[in-house]
Amino acid sequence: MEIIDVTTTVGPKTVKWPDDTVPPLQEFVSHTDQGDPATVSQWMLSAHTGTHVDARMHFIPGGWTMETLDLGRSVGPCRVVDLTGVEGHVSRADLEAAEVAGQARLLLKTRNSDLGLMQREEFDEGYAAISKEAAEYLVEIGVETVGVDYLSVEPFEDEEFRTHHTLLGADVLILEGLVLTDVEPGEYFLACLPLKLAGSDGSPARAILIRGL
Amino acid sequence: MEIIDVTTTVGPKTVKWPDDTVPPLQEFVSHTDQGDPATVSQWMLSAHTGTHVDARMHFIPGGWTMETLDLGRSVGPCRVVDLTGVEGHVSRADLEAAEVAGQARLLLKTRNSDLGLMQREEFDEGYAAISKEAAEYLVEIGVETVGVDYLSVEPFEDEEFRTHHTLLGADVLILEGLVLTDVEPGEYFLACLPLKLAGSDGSPARAILIRGL
Repeated sequence: MEIIDVTTTVGPKTVKWPDDTVPPLQEFVSHTDQGDPATVSQWMLSAHTGTHVDARMHFIPGGWTMETLDLGRSVGPCRVVDLTGVEGHVSRADLEAAEVAGQARLLLKTRNSDLGLMQREEFDEGYAAISKEAAEYLVEIGVETVGVDYLSVEPFEDEEFRTHHTLLGADVLILEGLVLTDVEPGEYFLACLPLKLAGSDGSPARAILIRGL
Repeated sequence: MEIIDVTTTVGPKTVKWPDDTVPPLQEFVSHTDQGDPATVSQWMLSAHTGTHVDARMHFIPGGWTMETLDLGRSVGPCRVVDLTGVEGHVSRADLEAAEVAGQARLLLKTRNSDLGLMQREEFDEGYAAISKEAAEYLVEIGVETVGVDYLSVEPFEDEEFRTHHTLLGADVLILEGLVLTDVEPGEYFLACLPLKLAGSDGSPARAILIRGL
């Protein structure tokens, strides 16, 4: 059994959205270096830090919140789809060409992974996202969960957030910030587990792919 | 395939250690109810909130920190051991009687689960923990990972933290705060995934048991 970690490391240098003012912050409450018996820290984290899961509430008023996530959505067989050759954003035609219909869980590997964007501190507006038409196609073919390899499924320039609204409106689960750089396209067992945060619009998660289960 | 969530919900009412002054706190940065396009919150969390994993650094100066955890420790076959009849703390004899030798990952289900201690807001000093001798036995038989169903592996009255030192000293992975109330003792596939927090002494985690993989 092989476990592949597809999670970005969370710390003060983790890439964050431009208007997200607070980076992940750690504060030590006690430390063995100061003579305390144990080292204990606390963390300030955005619900959308690094590798994370969106709850429906993120864009849909009254939508479900993180603690009620159906884990069957983010745990189970998945396919990592090779879209590394796509220029611009992922289109309906790109998904059709990749023959993704019939899969419940899709992780889209794009040039973001080849460029190592999740591993860089500076935010890059030029990331590959999912176009509104491609999002509509995902809904049409019944995809239950879609994961992307940068901080958002949304094209940076879409100020109406139509990709989020299309996906969350149809209750497609969104996983963002996956690190797929060293992952070969193909079939895996996915376990993407966010924290069980009550009333939250999202949560940082640990995501792994398992092969040879 | 059945997924059993063994994680406690994280929020202001999550049970916490008596000297842990800050409960999990959520603050909304934007909210659709206030006319913002999206709802985004941030969280303040202790590294030892609710269901969580200890890094070696928690008690051992210079010990490994959370982002370097070997996930093979917290993901794989495990056994949930029935220790619900144990009074006081789990002893070496209790573990011998349960015939746990030969298992890499053990989750100890005690009266804490029957009493629903993790689901109560008030801290209970009378919880069942692992005695120092039982911890030494776990090291002796080569257990790699041990999980408990309350906030600490340590008996509340042990001010020298000998159970933690014994386990972390031998690099046995510690999972704490599991909710095993509705889990039948037996064999499962465990996926306990903490956040990948850089330089941290621990991390909240999402833990699931899978049956029928």
